[in-house]
Amino acid sequence: MLRTHTCGELSLADLGKEVKLCGWVQKSRDLGGMTFVDMRDRFGITQLTFNTDDDAALRASARELGREYVIQVSGTVIERASKNLKMATGEIEIKVSQLDVLNPAKLPPFLIEDETDGGEDIRLKYRYLDLRRNPVRNNLILRHKMAQEIRKYLDAENFIEVETPVLIKSTPEGARDFVVPSRMNPGEFYALPQSPQTFKQLLMISGFDRYFQIVKCFRDEDLRADRQPEFTQIDCELTFVEQEDILNIFEGLVRHLFKNIKGVVLNGFPRMDYADAMRLYGSDKPDIRFDMKFIEINELVQEKGFSVFDKAELVVAINAQNCAVYTRKQLDELTDFVKRPQIGATGLVYIRYNVDGSLKSSVDKFYTEEQLKAIADKADAKPGDLILIMAGAVDKTRKQLSELRLEIANREGLRNKETFAPLWVTDFPLLEWDEESNRYHAMHHPFTAPKPEDMVKLDTEPLSVRANAYDMVINGSEVGGGSIRIFNQDVQARMFDLLGFTPEEARKQFGFLMDAFTYGAPPHGGIALGFDRLVSIFAGLDSIRDVIAFPKNNAGRDVMIDSPSTIDEKQLTELSIQVKKKD
Amino acid sequence: MLRTHTCGELSLADLGKEVKLCGWVQKSRDLGGMTFVDMRDRFGITQLTFNTDDDAALRASARELGREYVIQVSGTVIERASKNLKMATGEIEIKVSQLDVLNPAKLPPFLIEDETDGGEDIRLKYRYLDLRRNPVRNNLILRHKMAQEIRKYLDAENFIEVETPVLIKSTPEGARDFVVPSRMNPGEFYALPQSPQTFKQLLMISGFDRYFQIVKCFRDEDLRADRQPEFTQIDCELTFVEQEDILNIFEGLVRHLFKNIKGVVLNGFPRMDYADAMRLYGSDKPDIRFDMKFIEINELVQEKGFSVFDKAELVVAINAQNCAVYTRKQLDELTDFVKRPQIGATGLVYIRYNVDGSLKSSVDKFYTEEQLKAIADKADAKPGDLILIMAGAVDKTRKQLSELRLEIANREGLRNKETFAPLWVTDFPLLEWDEESNRYHAMHHPFTAPKPEDMVKLDTEPLSVRANAYDMVINGSEVGGGSIRIFNQDVQARMFDLLGFTPEEARKQFGFLMDAFTYGAPPHGGIALGFDRLVSIFAGLDSIRDVIAFPKNNAGRDVMIDSPSTIDEKQLTELSIQVKKKD
Repeated sequence: MLRTHTCGELSLADLGKEVKLCGWVQKSRDLGGMTFVDMRDRFGITQLTFNTDDDAALRASARELGREYVIQVSGTVIERASKNLKMATGEIEIKVSQLDVLNPAKLPPFLIEDETDGGEDIRLKYRYLDLRRNPVRNNLILRHKMAQEIRKYLDAENFIEVETPVLIKSTPEGARDFVVPSRMNPGEFYALPQSPQTFKQLLMISGFDRYFQIVKCFRDEDLRADRQPEFTQIDCELTFVEQEDILNIFEGLVRHLFKNIKGVVLNGFPRMDYADAMRLYGSDKPDIRFDMKFIEINELVQEKGFSVFDKAELVVAINAQNCAVYTRKQLDELTDFVKRPQIGATGLVYIRYNVDGSLKSSVDKFYTEEQLKAIADKADAKPGDLILIMAGAVDKTRKQLSELRLEIANREGLRNKETFAPLWVTDFPLLEWDEESNRYHAMHHPFTAPKPEDMVKLDTEPLSVRANAYDMVINGSEVGGGSIRIFNQDVQARMFDLLGFTPEEARKQFGFLMDAFTYGAPPHGGIALGFDRLVSIFAGLDSIRDVIAFPKNNAGRDVMIDSPSTIDEKQLTELSIQVKKKD
Repeated sequence: MLRTHTCGELSLADLGKEVKLCGWVQKSRDLGGMTFVDMRDRFGITQLTFNTDDDAALRASARELGREYVIQVSGTVIERASKNLKMATGEIEIKVSQLDVLNPAKLPPFLIEDETDGGEDIRLKYRYLDLRRNPVRNNLILRHKMAQEIRKYLDAENFIEVETPVLIKSTPEGARDFVVPSRMNPGEFYALPQSPQTFKQLLMISGFDRYFQIVKCFRDEDLRADRQPEFTQIDCELTFVEQEDILNIFEGLVRHLFKNIKGVVLNGFPRMDYADAMRLYGSDKPDIRFDMKFIEINELVQEKGFSVFDKAELVVAINAQNCAVYTRKQLDELTDFVKRPQIGATGLVYIRYNVDGSLKSSVDKFYTEEQLKAIADKADAKPGDLILIMAGAVDKTRKQLSELRLEIANREGLRNKETFAPLWVTDFPLLEWDEESNRYHAMHHPFTAPKPEDMVKLDTEPLSVRANAYDMVINGSEVGGGSIRIFNQDVQARMFDLLGFTPEEARKQFGFLMDAFTYGAPPHGGIALGFDRLVSIFAGLDSIRDVIAFPKNNAGRDVMIDSPSTIDEKQLTELSIQVKKKD
């Protein structure tokens, strides 16, 4: 045995024991004739002591230890002179009788401490060293614990985890597929799954009743800041359920996780339909840790001579509580914020509801104080509040005001990472119109069922058809989404038709699923939660990158192993492909 | 709510309850004015009754139900007239008051019964229907339960599950990689992992101490009967351990699974070194459900004038107990068996130890009965036993006799699928010589550590160097294997050198790992168990195919979804590749 204990478990109860420990040198210091070494492993830190008076040679070896050396020591557990009660092992130390260096270490390229001096690039290249740091390792331990709890909860709810294939078939729908040339079937390719969607539906047709899988999925998209080409999904599907059953079970999952992982009992888990979310927050993933709902004020401001408002389809306000104190400069910053190209507004109107009860706005020449007061009243504003108003076309203006709402909340500290406000957004539209391809796209995916009561509008006004589709949102992040599925082959064929598939294309791509519908397909529905995102919210992180052990950079490269890389001609020939770069 | 209960839970305790159930029509029968329908879901079967006297129209609808129709019924739980105590719900039935067909079903192409009339091809094409059959679905439920128990055990043993990347780097070592062209890095490719080997070693260098993952791995090999291009591994790695620690922990895992899944308490879990396994069973994965060890008899049979034995490097026997009754025809069958091209022996010698104590052999003209008796005694044979002898070059003869040993055991019913005999085979050779490539191959993989005491022979007689490598074998199947790893960059470099890598090649492929060794790499080792194989053993199946939800056929095709398939030119162009079939 290389060790009798880990570095995190010895205490006063072990005084006098002969122990053997292994670990990394965190740091060491000399004090008179003594050397103290902090030895680290995953479980904690234990202090080692070496005394010249006891063994001069041994102490001399201890002084030669460098940071991150891997060592093995034997010794006796003794009580510490100066205790550190913040550490589990802080009341004891090991009086070392034998020291062996198992492996020396070069000086790491950055500090292995909670706060490091290493930049992102160097830490990705030496990811195995970055993973030694407590905050990074703790994220992955959190991830492990969450996965265990998810499986425990779903197992208790009668879900069965089934592994679906990774080598599947390329489909033109959705994002770009990663493909894999088949050596045994020259000229043909597998695709990596963007999700196990069709397989989980087939499992329902097979009578599995409740399926889940924590599973890697793949999308060959241009990588934005917080996207990874491979990501992990908690993928679920249920039979003989309605939307309400699914929302209840997965609200239960999230409550279970918050309770068992963070000791947090969630208050509400409200439901809001898509139309309300857009109307009240300008977003299908509103952050409801704070209120600041939209107030539509067309009828209060139009036809008073202010042409910007008069010609606007929508005039809409938010009440920034206690922000009347904002200076001219701060207000200018907000105006600059909404005018940034990625937001694209033309301007911002404010009404300052002063503490003395007076009202002052940037459009004073068009509105009386009484008219301003009417707006303030509608916005439930009190003296000391600041009302911010935007105007224009409905969809665009809502989106812009939504960004401003979040900006104010950031400035006012209303987005505390230890406050958690989950929410279901329901009744998403079935379709959206895509200008570029000049056809309808499925807002969720082509297998989502229209609401039965909206079926009649499928031919006449498809864009007003709502789906039995829902998203789970936590703190303004979309954590997942799902829907009740089509389980009738005629409805599915109609849907493919609306999405611009010819019957032949639909048959070629999804014939197996349409066939399956004819052999006794039950009503079913499901959900997929983004596991990376969920863990990052629990970890209080903005990015998913630090909850992934070996992430790729924004160019899709793993800079540690230097992948992707070229492969040799022989391999290409075997696969019946050739590289042909674009000019 | 679509249902109040499943089809597996109602009993006499529920008499009189108004319930709503959903499921598939298993079968129905008419009896006088009544129709009885067996409705099935994952949880069981519930009997529905329809009575013309109560509601003639309803009963008429029930008579129109076809097999596999999906239905929903409301009704009252009543006591059955003729009870079926073999079924959980066999004492009750549902007197139906409302029947809705949720989806009709075409007649399935094969019977959805425990014993089906469908051939393998049609069942793969309609896999979603095959998965409705109890034996197939139960295999996947077993798989789920085993995965849950594995995670529970490893979590309790302080292992952390960490997801390693699926898009990694191609390496020339080992089997062929599946590769994935990178759109963002034209001309470059990711590879799918054959195992997460280097990543798990990096996690040890990162201080994760104990890692596991139930993970998909990929090998682009020509598919033999029981291989799949994607398969699932229980992948584990541990720090600060010796071989003994690893064997103990994973013996514990297997014991835990047998106890908690099958209620079986394993007797022994013996260890045998590779040399003994080859000497006593001619195999590195001996089936020890039965004994029938090899007995080397060179000294008893040579120089007696039988040239076949005289010139043989090895003469070796097994004692087939109670097989003296084998007829001439049976003995001929055995001879034919060993002469088959895939075994390739030239002949088989037998000694029949008759019940009357006389001995009779196929080589009577060279040996006296006394000499035969000496062989029988050495083989511990008793009257009624049959001794079978093969001779030739050591390795080849052992392999041939090993096949014969299994054949005898099959004939004699010694390989009961409900008997479980696990075994560790240890001390594998580090290297083997590959005639084809004219160089050494790593027997396990290039990261396996030589035994410290054999290090001195690395330069002089590399083939006699043993590794700290071990396989887990159950009932003659290799369930997994692992090793203590190299953690020193010089030893690793020496190993790559032995395997024929130039320093530049080693650097290009594994530079990141060699670098990592210089920053404080701890001693570590691990194991990977084949999850598909393990489940198939628990399920009593010979093939892994039926413990995989959606397996591929022997040509690597998924015949259900018709994959792999061609992709369009636009996709190929984006990926900077072209198809170029060999002529």
